[in-house]
Formats: sequence, structure tokens, C-alpha cells
Amino acid sequence: MTHGRRPDLEELEAERDRTEEEALRPDVVDSPVSTLLGVRSQGTSTNEGEHMSTTKEAANNGVNVEALLGAREALSKAPEAAQFTWRAQNEWVRGTHSRSTIDGFFGLGQEQKHRKSFTFEADHPEIFASEDHGATPVEIVLSGLASCLTAGIAAVAQNRGIQLRSVKATLEGTMDILGILGGDPDVRNGFNGIKVSYTIDADATPDEIKAVVAQSQKRSAVFDIITNPTNVSVEVN
Amino acid sequence: MTHGRRPDLEELEAERDRTEEEALRPDVVDSPVSTLLGVRSQGTSTNEGEHMSTTKEAANNGVNVEALLGAREALSKAPEAAQFTWRAQNEWVRGTHSRSTIDGFFGLGQEQKHRKSFTFEADHPEIFASEDHGATPVEIVLSGLASCLTAGIAAVAQNRGIQLRSVKATLEGTMDILGILGGDPDVRNGFNGIKVSYTIDADATPDEIKAVVAQSQKRSAVFDIITNPTNVSVEVN
Repeated sequence: MTHGRRPDLEELEAERDRTEEEALRPDVVDSPVSTLLGVRSQGTSTNEGEHMSTTKEAANNGVNVEALLGAREALSKAPEAAQFTWRAQNEWVRGTHSRSTIDGFFGLGQEQKHRKSFTFEADHPEIFASEDHGATPVEIVLSGLASCLTAGIAAVAQNRGIQLRSVKATLEGTMDILGILGGDPDVRNGFNGIKVSYTIDADATPDEIKAVVAQSQKRSAVFDIITNPTNVSVEVN
Repeated sequence: MTHGRRPDLEELEAERDRTEEEALRPDVVDSPVSTLLGVRSQGTSTNEGEHMSTTKEAANNGVNVEALLGAREALSKAPEAAQFTWRAQNEWVRGTHSRSTIDGFFGLGQEQKHRKSFTFEADHPEIFASEDHGATPVEIVLSGLASCLTAGIAAVAQNRGIQLRSVKATLEGTMDILGILGGDPDVRNGFNGIKVSYTIDADATPDEIKAVVAQSQKRSAVFDIITNPTNVSVEVN
């Protein structure tokens, strides 16, 4: 089986070499994205793409690539359904400690709910004379970047027929805290830069693995948010 | 008591109108930042700043402003100690689900540990044919922004002698998901923009509250990270 780097357009072709068993799993055939968009999974097809082969078992990273490709096709024809609004609520607890709640969002033309609420505690560490009840906000941003890239790696690997065994990342963001402390007006508040280091065990060559990571970067929402400017408006009611 | 907007430099002067009881709390006098930097809290002083008064009880938002101001002073003289490295570890679970762990960081010239590890589950929602085991990465970024601004609001309010009663925020990030799906090369992957709406109950006028929020924005690490470009390098070991 070859996993050579394919051109970007081609790589988003449906992966067609899934086993029928996989294709018939309820979460593939009746995935909500398919249902809402009227898209049917093509997973029962056994056609092989030009660049795919079935010389070994199909990769299963737990990502439903057919549904995503179906969604892309359907949303390209109904672009208003692709307009999403993601939300977080935040409530001050005490000192620098606050709690964020992630509950619902808007997408596919209607309000959507997560299966359950997710809460995130944030605080400053003890060396900042705080009580360290949660991660610092900048660490939370690093975790958001990490999880976005890792999800993308799983999806791209799935699309390329690469079986992942383990994916681990360490992220480091350097910062001169004289910026946030107001000690030097020439020092920025945010990170000087971020370094992400992946260690990946997968059924692929080192170059193929690097290509998967590169493609994940290219499609990552959080990578884009951090590397490019995003307008933030803050209002007080 | 007046809470008028003061110039930026003045506002970072030590707040000197704390009660002696507060000043003698162990977490003020023996805060690690003070200890490590050899800074002593000025909290026992009862001098009043030019712009402060004691016509009502001192605000107590649970933020140790003296320690932060002491740290700024000490770090300005020892700028190498102000070089921090924040970290997150991330591990793929299955599909788009991953887990981030926040543990330690580097700062004040040495390795530092959080009181405990913080973990964050991330996933994609069910409408993306995922299993929704955690918040989506972009929602995690919104929570990081929220918590950074809220911590700043508490600190700035404390410095200005404004007692907070409640601080709540709703954040919304709009996104055309045809970007991340690869459906339209002209659509960016990240947010089109982010709107943050605060509702704050505090012992201050609406204009004073707005000024506190504006100052928090100005010193927020995550606000800077999102609104300005930050270099991210991704490597595979």
C-alpha cells in the first residue's frame, strides 16, 4: 500500500476501500451530518480510488471521512448551512479564577447542542500569587491548538488509508511576562512563538507521517486563528 | 470613592488602602512570587495614593495586586526571570477525540509545577459525525480568551478599588466551515471574528466598568494571541 503525498484536491476524494462491516456501522450510515444534509454515506462502495489499494486491511482511526466529504459536497451547494457560530460562556469565580461552559452552538441552519456541557476551570498559578484552581488561559489556548491539529491528523490519516497507533504532542509557547505585567511597552502580551512537536506511531513512512501533519496544519481552524489576525470585539452590556 | 479612568502608568501603582487584616493574610505576605523574587508585599502600608480614598471599605476581588506590582518591579530588574515557557501535552484517543494535559511550565528561571494536572477533553460534535467526547478545539480557544479577559478584569478592578460582584461573558465566534472542509479555497479556516459580551455587576459606574474591561483587553495575553499573528512551528520527531 502506498501512502505517497497526493495533491490536495485528490486527497479529499472519498476513501472507498472500507470494509462493508465498517461502512454499515450505524454511526457511519446514519451520522447526523448525513441525515441533516440529506447526504448518504458512500461507504458501501467497494470501488478503489486510483491511488488506494487493498493489499492490507483498511485503516480505522475512528474518523468518518465519508460523512465529512459528503458534508463538504452538500454544504458547497447550500453555503448558508456552513455558517457556524461557536460559543463559550464564562463566569468569574474569585480572584483570577473563572469557569467556562461550552454548551451549544449554531450550525446547519439551526441551534445545536453538545451531548453534555463541558466546563473548563482557568486560573493563574501560585507564583503569580493566585490560587491555581485551573490552567492558565494561555495553556488552554495551547491545548486548543493541540487538539485541533491532532483531530486533523486522525482525519487526514484516515483519508489517506494510514492507520495511526499513537499520536502525542508537546506544545511550548514562550512569553516574556513583562508584557502582561506592563513592565516593558515594547514586549507583546502574547507568545513570542509556539513550537509543536509530534511523536506519531503509524503504519506509514516518516515522510508520509510528516505530510499528514502538514495537511492537518493547512486545514486547522485553531492554527489559522493563532497564526493570522482575527478581529475580536469586546462589549459591556 | 472615585473610580475615574486614570492614566495607564498611574493605574499600576500599588494599591495602598487595604485593611491590615487583608495585608497580613499569609497568601499576601508569603506569596511565592514575592518569595522567589525577594519582593515584600507593601500591603501593611496604610498610605493612601493620590487618587484613592477610604470612604468605603477596600475592594476585595481576591487578586493580590501588590504581589503583581512587586513582581513587575523585580522582573524589570531581572528580565531573564520574566522569560516563561508555557506547555501543553496532547494525546490522541480515537477519531477526533484527544486529551490535553497541563502540568508544568518554566518561569522565574526554573521549572514550575501546577498544584495539580489539568486535563481537557476535545472532540468534534455529532453533526460532524464525531462522538462529542469534549468541546471542539475552537470552543476551547474561546474559553481561553474568556478566562484571560475575566482574570484581567478582576485584577484591574482590584487595582482601581472597584468591588466586583459578578462577571459573566458570552463569546461567539463565527466561522464558515467550508474553509476547514476544503470546500472553498477563499474561505479561511478560523473564525471570521469573535464577539465578547460582558455583563458585570460591580461597585462602579458603567463607564468605569467599561474602562476596566478595556484595560483588561490591553494587557490580555490571549487577546493579543488571537488578534495578532503568532508564529507556530510544527515538527514531527
